[in-house]
Amino acid sequence: MSKKVGVLLSGCGVFDGTEIHESVLTLLFLDRAGAEALCMAPDVDQFHVINHLTHQETNEKRNVLVESARIARGNIRDVAKVKAAELDALILPGGFGAAKNLSDFALKGPDAVVQADVERLIREMVAAGKPVGAICIAPATLVRAIADKKPEVTIGNDTGTAAGIERMGGRHKICTVDRIHVDKTNRIVSTPAYMLGPGIKDVAVGIEKLVNEILSMI
Amino acid sequence: MSKKVGVLLSGCGVFDGTEIHESVLTLLFLDRAGAEALCMAPDVDQFHVINHLTHQETNEKRNVLVESARIARGNIRDVAKVKAAELDALILPGGFGAAKNLSDFALKGPDAVVQADVERLIREMVAAGKPVGAICIAPATLVRAIADKKPEVTIGNDTGTAAGIERMGGRHKICTVDRIHVDKTNRIVSTPAYMLGPGIKDVAVGIEKLVNEILSMI
Repeated sequence: MSKKVGVLLSGCGVFDGTEIHESVLTLLFLDRAGAEALCMAPDVDQFHVINHLTHQETNEKRNVLVESARIARGNIRDVAKVKAAELDALILPGGFGAAKNLSDFALKGPDAVVQADVERLIREMVAAGKPVGAICIAPATLVRAIADKKPEVTIGNDTGTAAGIERMGGRHKICTVDRIHVDKTNRIVSTPAYMLGPGIKDVAVGIEKLVNEILSMI
Repeated sequence: MSKKVGVLLSGCGVFDGTEIHESVLTLLFLDRAGAEALCMAPDVDQFHVINHLTHQETNEKRNVLVESARIARGNIRDVAKVKAAELDALILPGGFGAAKNLSDFALKGPDAVVQADVERLIREMVAAGKPVGAICIAPATLVRAIADKKPEVTIGNDTGTAAGIERMGGRHKICTVDRIHVDKTNRIVSTPAYMLGPGIKDVAVGIEKLVNEILSMI
């Protein structure tokens, strides 16, 4: 039976949702390794909608689950209906959606609140000793959800974000885009991806290592 | 100087825009091969907007260039402003957008009309002997744009679509998802991708071959 890995999406587009390249690369490397991906997202409105051409906020309303379904080709579930017992591991790709829709870390920093269903699933996974991966800015939301566990993560080398992570109770480690950081105690793997870039082939290196490390920990 | 390859997008999402996996894989393999991708899309309204969770049409309006910018992380140009002289090659990923927004083949079959800027750029490329790649359903739009050249393409093995291609003046060749078809006369490369699937690792095989073949023809 293949390993079943949740991929927690947060919309569709780097500025207001999931980073599309990071999520597709996660799905590619899971499939190549013979694992089954279960895409999921919270059924809530996006914090806002950004026109990705002009970088301006629009007055549209979009739903996180509905937009995430674009990346998942329609094969996606409401995270509220997913239990940790169904999964062998969980991966959170990045993009601003991970810090605007899964939590509000992009707006409130260390005072962020994690979306309730997202927090519940992350805490169930960590409590069950199941590995969790977080890419790009997603480690900030992950740290907020399990701050009491003092998780150790990387978001690259951005000092402001790293300081926010430390203030929430996490520990931050500097890391390059082609590497991963592993918190062996909490079974958490993170990689900087587009927090550093510069391009898709570069972020693919770290994401492939993250996926393979997560699968090896199952 | 690196090879410069246009990637012609048609929105963001398989049912009403560009197939996201196919476009990201195209960008990945171009970057890995050291080529520069220039993303572009027409500045027109999408034919319609599909809720990718429910598969129902919504009453929203979205712009093809604006939504394509999500895949391009904001780094994209209006195809109307792009000349073939700037490019070494052009690739059209698939998704219904390639047959709803770049042309209306999905609606009108062989009577399809190609969007004017898209048709102009494709015809400039082929006239200049520059290679053009087309993935999934995109070969149908490509054939309509250069039907007078009797292009030879594959969309996999769907008999209805293949018949439509033949009625427009193209020639269709059956092909598996892990292979490409090359029209040496017109310098066109095509691969079935999600016309066949079944999964992302499978379509990645054909898309990587298509990208590498296109680059070798420059």
